[in-house]
Amino acid sequence: MTTLRTPGPTIGVVGGGQLGRMLAEAAAPLGIEVVVLDPTPDCPAALVARDQIVAEFDDEAGIRELAARADVLTFEIELADQDVMERVSEETGTPVHPKPSTLETIHDKIVQKRELEAAGVPVPPFRGVEDADDVRAAIDDYGAPVMLKARTGGYDGRGNVPVESKADAADALESVAGPAMVESFVDFEREVSVIAVKGAAERSSANREDTPRDDDETATFPIGENVHEDEILRETIVPARSSETVTDRAHAVARDVLEVMEGRGVYGIELFETREGEILLNEIAPRPHNSGHWTIEGAASSQFEQHARAVLGWPLGSTKLRSPTVMTNLLGDVDEEREAELGDIDRILETPGANLHWYGKRQARPLRKLGHVTLSAGDEDASVEDLLERARDLERSVTFRTDE
Amino acid sequence: MTTLRTPGPTIGVVGGGQLGRMLAEAAAPLGIEVVVLDPTPDCPAALVARDQIVAEFDDEAGIRELAARADVLTFEIELADQDVMERVSEETGTPVHPKPSTLETIHDKIVQKRELEAAGVPVPPFRGVEDADDVRAAIDDYGAPVMLKARTGGYDGRGNVPVESKADAADALESVAGPAMVESFVDFEREVSVIAVKGAAERSSANREDTPRDDDETATFPIGENVHEDEILRETIVPARSSETVTDRAHAVARDVLEVMEGRGVYGIELFETREGEILLNEIAPRPHNSGHWTIEGAASSQFEQHARAVLGWPLGSTKLRSPTVMTNLLGDVDEEREAELGDIDRILETPGANLHWYGKRQARPLRKLGHVTLSAGDEDASVEDLLERARDLERSVTFRTDE
Repeated sequence: MTTLRTPGPTIGVVGGGQLGRMLAEAAAPLGIEVVVLDPTPDCPAALVARDQIVAEFDDEAGIRELAARADVLTFEIELADQDVMERVSEETGTPVHPKPSTLETIHDKIVQKRELEAAGVPVPPFRGVEDADDVRAAIDDYGAPVMLKARTGGYDGRGNVPVESKADAADALESVAGPAMVESFVDFEREVSVIAVKGAAERSSANREDTPRDDDETATFPIGENVHEDEILRETIVPARSSETVTDRAHAVARDVLEVMEGRGVYGIELFETREGEILLNEIAPRPHNSGHWTIEGAASSQFEQHARAVLGWPLGSTKLRSPTVMTNLLGDVDEEREAELGDIDRILETPGANLHWYGKRQARPLRKLGHVTLSAGDEDASVEDLLERARDLERSVTFRTDE
Repeated sequence: MTTLRTPGPTIGVVGGGQLGRMLAEAAAPLGIEVVVLDPTPDCPAALVARDQIVAEFDDEAGIRELAARADVLTFEIELADQDVMERVSEETGTPVHPKPSTLETIHDKIVQKRELEAAGVPVPPFRGVEDADDVRAAIDDYGAPVMLKARTGGYDGRGNVPVESKADAADALESVAGPAMVESFVDFEREVSVIAVKGAAERSSANREDTPRDDDETATFPIGENVHEDEILRETIVPARSSETVTDRAHAVARDVLEVMEGRGVYGIELFETREGEILLNEIAPRPHNSGHWTIEGAASSQFEQHARAVLGWPLGSTKLRSPTVMTNLLGDVDEEREAELGDIDRILETPGANLHWYGKRQARPLRKLGHVTLSAGDEDASVEDLLERARDLERSVTFRTDE
C-alpha cells in the first residue's frame, strides 16, 4: 500500500520545459516533489519544481546528481541521451521510466514503425530510403505525394517533407539531411490522438515483483481530435467527432501500442482516421503530449498526474471526461525572437470555463509554444463546434508584442 | 488590459502553510509567481513557491525584502503584524491586500461584531466581559449556555469556551485569559459558509482609479455546509442542504460583509443557519478558508485562484459549481507529535472523482491539518449524503503512524 511522508517521493525529470512544469503542477497537491535538469537557467519548470539542476540534457554528472536526488528518473524531451540515462540508472539503482529501450525504439522512426507493424499495429506503408532513386521508387509504389521523414530528431513536423513528384525527390532528401524514410501519404478524414498510460502491475495482486506484462495497469483517455497547421498542433477537440466504431478502433490500437512500449508512463499516440474509417498510427511520443493538455481541466485526472503516478508505481487515476473540452495553443505570433509578452488576456480570464496556462518562457519566437487555453463546456449544453469557435475567438483576442 | 510577461507578477505572502501552498499551486498555471515569508525552513508552501524568505511573521526586515520582490503583499495567517505591513507598504509602495485595517477589525472579535452589526449584518447578541460578574450577567440576559470567546488570537475553536452555568463563569474566564466577550449560544440547524471575493473596480469602467466602492467586482461561491467536531472543521458539503430562501439570505449577508471589508481578496464567512431559517454571522477569515478547499476541484475557479486574481487586480473568475462536492480534512490522528506519515492512500488514489491534497508538513500533531480529500460527483447522479458517506469512508481508509 502506498504511503506518503514529507518530503514526498521525488521524480527526477530530464528537461524542464512546459511539460516538466505541468508535471510539477500536477505532482504538488499529491505531495510528490519534482527536480528537473535543464541547461537553460530558470527554465519554465523551475518556478514550480523543488529544484533545477542546470546541465545539458546528456551531462552525465548532472544526471547522476539528478538520480541521487530522485526515487525515479523520467524525461520530458526526446533529446535525453538514453545510453547515459541507462548507465546512471544502473550505477545508482534509480529506475528510469519509460525504459530507455522504449525511447530508443521510438527515437528512430523506422525502427518504431517496424516494431509496431510486427506487433500488429496498423501503420501506413513505409520504407527506408538511401537516395533519390529510393524516393522515386516509393512514389512509383505508393503514388504521389509521399511523406519524406527524417528518421531521427524531428518534432512538431520538423524533418517531415511532403514530396509531390519524382522531380522533387533529390531536393527533398537534401532538406531532410541524414537517415530518412518514406511513408505513403495518408488521405485522412481527421487526425486524432489517444493519451495512454501504463502503470505498475495491479497493486491488488500479491506478487508485486515479476508480474507478467499483461498484468500492468493501463488506461486510455477519451480520444482527442487534432487540428494542425504548418505541421504544428493548433487545437485539440474532445471528444473527437469520430464514430463509435472508429473511437473503439483507436482505443484498441492505443492498447496494442502500449503492449509494445516498455516501462511505465504516459504516451501520446497520434493516429490518422482515414476516409474509410480505418485507424493508422502516425507518431508516438513517450511522454505527456500537447494533444493531452485538455486533460488538466477536462478529465478526472490529468495526463501529468497520470505520468507521475505511473512512474512512481502508484495506482492510476480515472481518465473520465469531465465535460467536452477544446484546447488551443498560444503560439508565438511574432516575426522574430523577442521578449515574450501576452497582452489583453482579460477576455480569457473573464470567460467561464476558460483556463489560461502560461509556460513562463522568457523569449517568444515565431510559432513557439508559449501557453495554451482550455475551454470546457461544464454543464452547458455546448457542441464541440461551438466550443471550438469560442476557443478560437479567445485565442485571437490576445496580443503578442510585435513592436517596441 | 492585463498583460503577462516572464517572470509574471509576484505575490508576496506572509505565511507559508497549506494556504500559501495551494495559492502557489493555483497561481503557477497563470504565470503568477509567489514568494512566501515563514519562520519554518522548508514550510509547506516552499515546494511550490518561487522562493521562501525565512523570517518571523512580524520581522520588518524580512517583510521589507518580501515587499521589494513582490508586486503586491498579502497574508495567509492572521498572526501577520498589520502595523509592520502597513509601514513597509508605505515605505516601499507595494500595496497590501486585503487592507491591514480590515485585518485589524477582524482581529478583535468584538470590534468585528460591532462594525458588522452597525452595517446591518445579523449577529448573535454579544457583549464584552471584564470579569465573572459580567459573564453571569450575560447568562441572565441570554440564558445558559453562553459562548465565551477570547477577543483575539483564537482559531480552529481555540479560545472558545461554552459556559453551561453561572458556577462555571470564573473558571471559564480564567481558561480564556485576556480580553474576552460573550455571545448568546446559537441553537443552529447547521453551520454554513460562503467564500466571497472582492476584486478591483470593474475593468470595463474607464476610470480605473478613484472608482466608487460599490463598483468593486465581487463574487460569491455556492454555499458550503460545514461539519465541525471538537470545534475543528471536519467536512464541507456543497451544495449545503439549506432551502433556497436560506441560501439567498446567506449570499446577501456575505455581500453585506464584503461591503464592510476593505481591500481586495478572498474572505471565508462562517454563518449559523438557525432552526428558524435565519442567518447569523459566526466568524470571518480575511483569506482563503478551509471550508473553501472544495473549490479546487468543485468550482470553475478555486478560491486560491480568485485570491491571486483579486489581489493583483485581475478580473475575477467564475465561481460556478462544477458538480456536488464533499471535502474532508485529514487531521493528525496521533497521540503526540511525530513525523507525519499517511499510509494506505491507495483507495483514495483509485476512487474516480477523489482528489488527495497533502500539505507537506513534516510533523503530525493531534488534530493538526495534514491534508484533505475532495470527492466530486462528476456526471454521476449522487446525493450529497452519499458523497459524504463515501468521503468519510475514504478518510477512514488512510492510516496515520501511531507506533514506530
